[in-house]
Amino acid sequence: MAKAFSVQATIASFGGNLLKLEHNATSTGSTMKLNLFLPAQAEKGKVPVIFYLAGLTCTGDNGAEKGFFQATASKHGIAIVYPDTSPRGLGVQGEDESWDFGTGAGFYLDATKGSYAAGYKMSSYITKELPVALYGQFENLDSSRVSIMGHSMGGHGALTLFLRNPGMYKSVSAFAPISNPKNCPWGQKAFGGYLKSEEEYDEWDATELIKKWGGDFEALIDVGDADNFYNHGQLLPENFIEAAKSKGKADKINLRMQKGYDHSYFFISTFSEDHINYHAKRLL
Amino acid sequence: MAKAFSVQATIASFGGNLLKLEHNATSTGSTMKLNLFLPAQAEKGKVPVIFYLAGLTCTGDNGAEKGFFQATASKHGIAIVYPDTSPRGLGVQGEDESWDFGTGAGFYLDATKGSYAAGYKMSSYITKELPVALYGQFENLDSSRVSIMGHSMGGHGALTLFLRNPGMYKSVSAFAPISNPKNCPWGQKAFGGYLKSEEEYDEWDATELIKKWGGDFEALIDVGDADNFYNHGQLLPENFIEAAKSKGKADKINLRMQKGYDHSYFFISTFSEDHINYHAKRLL
Repeated sequence: MAKAFSVQATIASFGGNLLKLEHNATSTGSTMKLNLFLPAQAEKGKVPVIFYLAGLTCTGDNGAEKGFFQATASKHGIAIVYPDTSPRGLGVQGEDESWDFGTGAGFYLDATKGSYAAGYKMSSYITKELPVALYGQFENLDSSRVSIMGHSMGGHGALTLFLRNPGMYKSVSAFAPISNPKNCPWGQKAFGGYLKSEEEYDEWDATELIKKWGGDFEALIDVGDADNFYNHGQLLPENFIEAAKSKGKADKINLRMQKGYDHSYFFISTFSEDHINYHAKRLL
Repeated sequence: MAKAFSVQATIASFGGNLLKLEHNATSTGSTMKLNLFLPAQAEKGKVPVIFYLAGLTCTGDNGAEKGFFQATASKHGIAIVYPDTSPRGLGVQGEDESWDFGTGAGFYLDATKGSYAAGYKMSSYITKELPVALYGQFENLDSSRVSIMGHSMGGHGALTLFLRNPGMYKSVSAFAPISNPKNCPWGQKAFGGYLKSEEEYDEWDATELIKKWGGDFEALIDVGDADNFYNHGQLLPENFIEAAKSKGKADKINLRMQKGYDHSYFFISTFSEDHINYHAKRLL
């Protein structure tokens, strides 16, 4: 298969390598950058893969530099993909006017509204184009053993992409996820800007999607109780738990309220080992 | 004792807290910012302290966000101090003209030349004013159990401050340290700008200082063999080892050339656990 990615840099990290990749993505119609951590074990054989979806304003660099996932992934022999959070440079009107919409805020959905509908297709990019391209070029990524996790907007992305694509991911976890976007300011702004009708909101809202999930549901979710966004009603993890309970799907959701922790990468790095170990149990 | 520091933020990290501190330093004549990691053990009693000195262009944030020292320090119950790399905002002519001299490049020495002599006193700040202020305000920092480490310019700072102050630190380690500044471009630029006569160079050069060291010398030093600064002769760790050998002081210097690693925080974070464990053995 043709090589989709150009390797901008190869950086040694925890016995493996962090690759800075760039490719022309057709689903977004833009050049997309990402980081790929390949553990040493990938030199000898197939390794499972975890996608880490970052939050508002982030790129694929934040998790790779501050999340500290490589430390634990390297012990288990797991690769980590750190995609960007939106297309960049499309020139869509309004995409750079605020930090919580447009550039850096793609919300991991497929936009249907106005000029955003052309390139803001992060759901298709993350679940279809990106993995196909990665597995084609990096043959030791095991496409049959893939999990997903994320932070804030990316935590919601992890939950929704897991719930919208049964069987695609072995496990899901989230740090401080936006859990019920149609009922919080960030989500209402994003859905209102990306989706052409309110009927579409439920298709991209984790709290609505869990109600339609068939079979067991299992997840690890950490939220800091000193997280200002949680305390201002942007995350609403309780709504997700309540919805899961209403359908008898809450027993295996481990929501941990972490005392004193905020929304930052200091919170994420503290619990990154737990999340990688959680996925490792289901991938190895 | 009067509180020297204002606490700008308290951020939960690995069961302890990272404090963002600010104080008016008399040795530099400036407001100095730093980060202090207090492990959970500091709530119950005295904890040892490691100073981490950052490299060129850095602040106290780089190590705190990307070095991942808190992960291991929290297990041992060790506090970490992350100072800034120079005074800021003094308005000294030329201090902001290049990235490797002046602001962000104080070299952890006491300047004697021209207008830099007034405030560029990072040696006095790190070894005298800062610790006294910290131990006065944070009474569970154990001033009798202190070690020092650093990266690049800060690795040199750690080596020189250890060698210039016998007994002050229990142990020293360095990541990719500038090891013989008077013989590398970075060091020649710094010494030429901060020191008024070449006679002073040897007082601030680790390779010269090791020759005068009495008794045993012990250190852990990691250098990546893919480090461009190493490969361009800016670090010269071999000169330091040779000088130590010439005085029979090299047996306990563990210089590890790390295959494929560069000069970045991906290199530092990979080996941060080893360095914290190295100091813990000598502090606990």
